[in-house]
Amino acid sequence: MLNVGIVGATGYAGEELIDILLRHPGVRIAHLSAKLDKPKAISAIFPKFKNKIDLICNIPDIKEIINKSDLVFLVLPHTVSMDFAPKLLDAGKRVIDLSADYRLKDVKIYAQFYKAKQKDKAHLNMAVYGLPELYREKIRRSKLIANPGCYPTAAILALAPIAAFNLADLSSIIIDAKSGVTGAGRKFAEAFLFSEINEDFKAYKVNIHQHIPEINQEVSILAGKKTQITFVPHLLPINRGILETIYVKKRRQDSRTQGHKLISLYKKFYKKEPFVRIKDEGDFPRLKDVVGTNFCDIGIKENADSIIIVSTIDNLLKGASGQAVQNMNIMCGFTESSGLR
Amino acid sequence: MLNVGIVGATGYAGEELIDILLRHPGVRIAHLSAKLDKPKAISAIFPKFKNKIDLICNIPDIKEIINKSDLVFLVLPHTVSMDFAPKLLDAGKRVIDLSADYRLKDVKIYAQFYKAKQKDKAHLNMAVYGLPELYREKIRRSKLIANPGCYPTAAILALAPIAAFNLADLSSIIIDAKSGVTGAGRKFAEAFLFSEINEDFKAYKVNIHQHIPEINQEVSILAGKKTQITFVPHLLPINRGILETIYVKKRRQDSRTQGHKLISLYKKFYKKEPFVRIKDEGDFPRLKDVVGTNFCDIGIKENADSIIIVSTIDNLLKGASGQAVQNMNIMCGFTESSGLR
Amino acid sequence: MLNVGIVGATGYAGEELIDILLRHPGVRIAHLSAKLDKPKAISAIFPKFKNKIDLICNIPDIKEIINKSDLVFLVLPHTVSMDFAPKLLDAGKRVIDLSADYRLKDVKIYAQFYKAKQKDKAHLNMAVYGLPELYREKIRRSKLIANPGCYPTAAILALAPIAAFNLADLSSIIIDAKSGVTGAGRKFAEAFLFSEINEDFKAYKVNIHQHIPEINQEVSILAGKKTQITFVPHLLPINRGILETIYVKKRRQDSRTQGHKLISLYKKFYKKEPFVRIKDEGDFPRLKDVVGTNFCDIGIKENADSIIIVSTIDNLLKGASGQAVQNMNIMCGFTESSGLR
Amino acid sequence: MLNVGIVGATGYAGEELIDILLRHPGVRIAHLSAKLDKPKAISAIFPKFKNKIDLICNIPDIKEIINKSDLVFLVLPHTVSMDFAPKLLDAGKRVIDLSADYRLKDVKIYAQFYKAKQKDKAHLNMAVYGLPELYREKIRRSKLIANPGCYPTAAILALAPIAAFNLADLSSIIIDAKSGVTGAGRKFAEAFLFSEINEDFKAYKVNIHQHIPEINQEVSILAGKKTQITFVPHLLPINRGILETIYVKKRRQDSRTQGHKLISLYKKFYKKEPFVRIKDEGDFPRLKDVVGTNFCDIGIKENADSIIIVSTIDNLLKGASGQAVQNMNIMCGFTESSGLR
Repeated sequence: MLNVGIVGATGYAGEELIDILLRHPGVRIAHLSAKLDKPKAISAIFPKFKNKIDLICNIPDIKEIINKSDLVFLVLPHTVSMDFAPKLLDAGKRVIDLSADYRLKDVKIYAQFYKAKQKDKAHLNMAVYGLPELYREKIRRSKLIANPGCYPTAAILALAPIAAFNLADLSSIIIDAKSGVTGAGRKFAEAFLFSEINEDFKAYKVNIHQHIPEINQEVSILAGKKTQITFVPHLLPINRGILETIYVKKRRQDSRTQGHKLISLYKKFYKKEPFVRIKDEGDFPRLKDVVGTNFCDIGIKENADSIIIVSTIDNLLKGASGQAVQNMNIMCGFTESSGLR
Repeated sequence: MLNVGIVGATGYAGEELIDILLRHPGVRIAHLSAKLDKPKAISAIFPKFKNKIDLICNIPDIKEIINKSDLVFLVLPHTVSMDFAPKLLDAGKRVIDLSADYRLKDVKIYAQFYKAKQKDKAHLNMAVYGLPELYREKIRRSKLIANPGCYPTAAILALAPIAAFNLADLSSIIIDAKSGVTGAGRKFAEAFLFSEINEDFKAYKVNIHQHIPEINQEVSILAGKKTQITFVPHLLPINRGILETIYVKKRRQDSRTQGHKLISLYKKFYKKEPFVRIKDEGDFPRLKDVVGTNFCDIGIKENADSIIIVSTIDNLLKGASGQAVQNMNIMCGFTESSGLR
Repeated sequence: MLNVGIVGATGYAGEELIDILLRHPGVRIAHLSAKLDKPKAISAIFPKFKNKIDLICNIPDIKEIINKSDLVFLVLPHTVSMDFAPKLLDAGKRVIDLSADYRLKDVKIYAQFYKAKQKDKAHLNMAVYGLPELYREKIRRSKLIANPGCYPTAAILALAPIAAFNLADLSSIIIDAKSGVTGAGRKFAEAFLFSEINEDFKAYKVNIHQHIPEINQEVSILAGKKTQITFVPHLLPINRGILETIYVKKRRQDSRTQGHKLISLYKKFYKKEPFVRIKDEGDFPRLKDVVGTNFCDIGIKENADSIIIVSTIDNLLKGASGQAVQNMNIMCGFTESSGLR
Repeated sequence: MLNVGIVGATGYAGEELIDILLRHPGVRIAHLSAKLDKPKAISAIFPKFKNKIDLICNIPDIKEIINKSDLVFLVLPHTVSMDFAPKLLDAGKRVIDLSADYRLKDVKIYAQFYKAKQKDKAHLNMAVYGLPELYREKIRRSKLIANPGCYPTAAILALAPIAAFNLADLSSIIIDAKSGVTGAGRKFAEAFLFSEINEDFKAYKVNIHQHIPEINQEVSILAGKKTQITFVPHLLPINRGILETIYVKKRRQDSRTQGHKLISLYKKFYKKEPFVRIKDEGDFPRLKDVVGTNFCDIGIKENADSIIIVSTIDNLLKGASGQAVQNMNIMCGFTESSGLR
């Protein structure tokens, strides 16, 4: 049994991680901690866990984390992860970081979008971007995983095949993204009150969202050239789920993007992937089919000059904790879908 | 044109009051104020009012309120209304108080349920409980209206006919109440976050809610003897509306409650009321038909030994601001439904 | 591996059953059928099952069901189950019936509430009411389970301790029930359109719901005398979950219901139950903590003369398919919580 | 008083029209009809209208409509409006048609998108597209108004300034549209059941929606050249409201679209419009501020090479019945905002 620790166990992603790991046959939750006034039973914080897990959620203490855990999930705000990861890595632990701290290779861009300094460049270089569909072999050998953001996961999986095969004009990518409310974490702000969100819908951080450089970084690597996406996120009055509608111009005279071949190409690209499902022609994904699962469902429409891609995930599973467990499974030699149904 | 002021304009009930008064042909909104860091255009606070009202929402100043207003709506937390009402009344203004401060005639009970002292007994005695269906003539002559609570409005209108005619065992009243989220006001608490309420449902303040004594007071007056209701409120994952399911035992051998006569009696009791609608036999009210209106819809089911009453209102209209305007209309000689469609 | 068949696989309860059984380590889904125009892949009916189960959903054929299955779940409308159950039992199969056909021991009452004749009295006598907390040993030895209704499950578990120990005036039970929309099944009626239910709330079948006799039957057996409950169901604008607020009068001078003893008594009564959780004093259950689980959470409030009980379940799990699997686990010697997390 | 008739009074748009006209000081609802089994009081169909309007909703009869009405709103499915409009116009009545029948000037495109023949070309030519912001003077003199579709209203108002001043590359327009459920009308289909839509989100009719040619027609007229928009609608789990996020490429070296000038240009373009509000820089509209109103709120973001426009309306008001009444007000000499608050 692998002993795992969760630091930051009381947010939505932490709660979801506990839920998944309780179903995982090869894992024992050995440590839980979070920013609290004082230690508290996790079943007192989340009554739904009563009779399922009998563990105290402590205030984070690096020694205790190290003593109890073989592998640690950091479910912390950005910049805070950098306080924990180096010590855990030095103590020989494996770390899966769900924050943004180790995702962006360019520290200037990190500084620009997160208004903070990436102060652990030593480990930044060894961190692997934890998208198994692109980096499975690197993940297998890694000690530090930068678990992808929710919007980037849906976007990069949707764009990878056309970026890898250079099938589109990558200067023109537009991503119109819609996310359920848990995507923003458990924030105590007026904007997140029930009466403010219920029966409402709005755009936010229009083309300035911090996930933009993460998507650009990964799509650029695949395409072999710089991209500059347009990205508008919106807030859906639902609990969970991300749907992104992506618009790309075709390159001129590209026979590979004629007819139904693009869907075939996507199906081939993701043929062996356990968690990516490509829709048949004329069929598009909906949130209902991915919420509560680790799947990314993708639908594709080819027009004369352009391509429309619809990509869906559960923001707390494939977009956060589910993907984190998928990464753990790969790192530790478990079946990749273990705990993820 | 009557000049009205609204003190506490930025909560849900204040917002609703502005909305109603903008449609009222005999009224001019002359003053708006609320607890703010600094004065701010009301259309900046509520963008929906842009192009509809061009007024600054100030920090409350008693002199300014008096200078600008003939009649003042106090939409304030309990205990705060008592700071404003005496000065406004002394200056000759009419006051409609939407807080609980002048509702309970027994100051001990006020102290018990609101954890505060009723410190304005002078005006408490002259305050009229603003339920037009029971106190229309007193309201007409009053200077100070204690505008009823949302739960009490639905409950008292549902119980008034059987209490007035002594048709039931009033020791047995059970009120199972369900309210939309705006009933709690605009509170910044974790419990009111979207993800906490959406797809959830729960009871709260089980049989200890502060509206219990208000219902008991009014039903006891009607019945001519003390009642002690059982009251359990629940939080509905919707924005607006209250539905109360009320269970009462019949008195033995009471011919007046046999057959369909009870519905007839209710229809007769409320015959001239513009805002109470009694459902026919077998038909029960739903929130959709009252939300956005000042109506109270009531349905009745007679069983062999008991009576079930279902009562519905919009908590922000008949349960707060709509009723406040209805009271203003009565006090000031406007058509009772003016501004209320 | 136990081969199970699901007849009626395309409703909400059938969908949920597939979901649970896919996680069950001891079971193989060997047959799926439903009223369809023609056979269809289950993953075409429910795209969420793509890559998880590769099976055709057929039109029900008794021979095929018998050939493929060791145990059969009937997820059919009432009266239709009676067409299948006798043949399956004669062929030596175990049957778990999620309809109402074998729940009511009194065929006159069945006829009255379901407007149909119970035409399989032979098997009605051998059917065991599948509430494990009351009938575990009988379930273990049974071939035919009448799986309880959703409302009755929450009500009977809430009332069992006080009924068994005769702690209350059972003539006075009032059940105010609220259910999410899936409780009504997948019906194509105007009343179930999104715009009719969203932001609405209403009572329905006021004190005439077909689950009334089922609750009376089981509570009467426990209490050793006839009960006649008052029952008002309401429709919540959410997908899943039932919350029932139950009001009972105390018997006079009963020392066992004084102080906090009632909660202790409930905790003792359900001490060994894997799926019943009793809340501490002052704490009440909410839907969020049981939806997605097989738990029934119960909270209790004692007043001077009365008791208020709040009981919650997921209507599709403990209220239908979860309980059906719990029954299967008991019948077949699996761990009782297998597949149910 | 103007006598108005509503043919098709029982859909969402008909219901909304009654609601508005009941508040209109210059209008009397003189006729209501709809496809019904037999005539029925409108307050029996919509209990919310009880005590507000006492009128029978009949089965449509052309003579009765003509006898009772000076102006007729046709709230009918496409192709059905063409059966009524000619006879009403011949009888000298004014007609506001909320269907698509008289919107598209090119009958071939009508046939292609609506799978039906436009069989009333005589009146098609005289029909005025009822978008007051573009055609106010023509509306004033018209007898037949083709009331715009909901998606086109939000789109055309958002695009009109840049189309009129030729500020963008109009070959590149992408409209990502999201609509509440009432936008689809009161349809009895499985896809519109509460449990199918609640907590879900999806794209539909991806780039093949019938509102595409309507938007192209009007934007092309403004721009003086053909446009070919990309249009993907999505279904929001809310009752009302449309939000469209629109992406346009700038033309090269166009100084007019530099800096904040674009917002100023929009403000100037709509300066005298009572129902269009332009947001300040950095501010974007949300549904909450327009739902329940006849406003269209528009926000604009300029990037180096592109423009992002967010446009919002209430689909049943500015997107249907509110705009219809605005058109009636213009045609009949009422204040343009009469009945619309």
